[in-house]
Amino acid sequence: MSLLDYFRTSRPSSASVAKERLQILVAHERVSRNQPSYLPQLQKELLEVIRKHVNVNQDAISFNFEQDGNQETLELNIVLPDQPPKKS
Amino acid sequence: MSLLDYFRTSRPSSASVAKERLQILVAHERVSRNQPSYLPQLQKELLEVIRKHVNVNQDAISFNFEQDGNQETLELNIVLPDQPPKKS
Repeated sequence: MSLLDYFRTSRPSSASVAKERLQILVAHERVSRNQPSYLPQLQKELLEVIRKHVNVNQDAISFNFEQDGNQETLELNIVLPDQPPKKS
Repeated sequence: MSLLDYFRTSRPSSASVAKERLQILVAHERVSRNQPSYLPQLQKELLEVIRKHVNVNQDAISFNFEQDGNQETLELNIVLPDQPPKKS
């Protein structure tokens, strides 16, 4: 099963919860843990990129960072406001 | 099941394929399809952010963009070279 299948099959229909949502997942499979993780810094920069396109309030963002062995995952969930997206 | 669970449970162990990998998923649940998608542009900018942290060859990147109803997904899969990451 690919990650795209996950999105297709297991997310509830958005018809009942008509909110724009943006979800970003970053998974880093590391060979060595000698280097420090750059995902927390990446998270800041990803948000800056997102903000170029859409108005995002800080309190509409939830994030989660996990390390499990050599696997690191960063999850960002953003509920977008009802305004139309900014022009890029 | 959260997306983090997906990463935890369904990915094969990396022990046998010792390659650094970075996977980025962006899912956009849209209320209205009147605005053009900004995910293709976002993809370019995400790659620029990633390149600040790691050396990534263009041919090590595969990507996938899908639209299914109000759901758009952008998937980037990057196989990282064996060099240590750049200092940020």
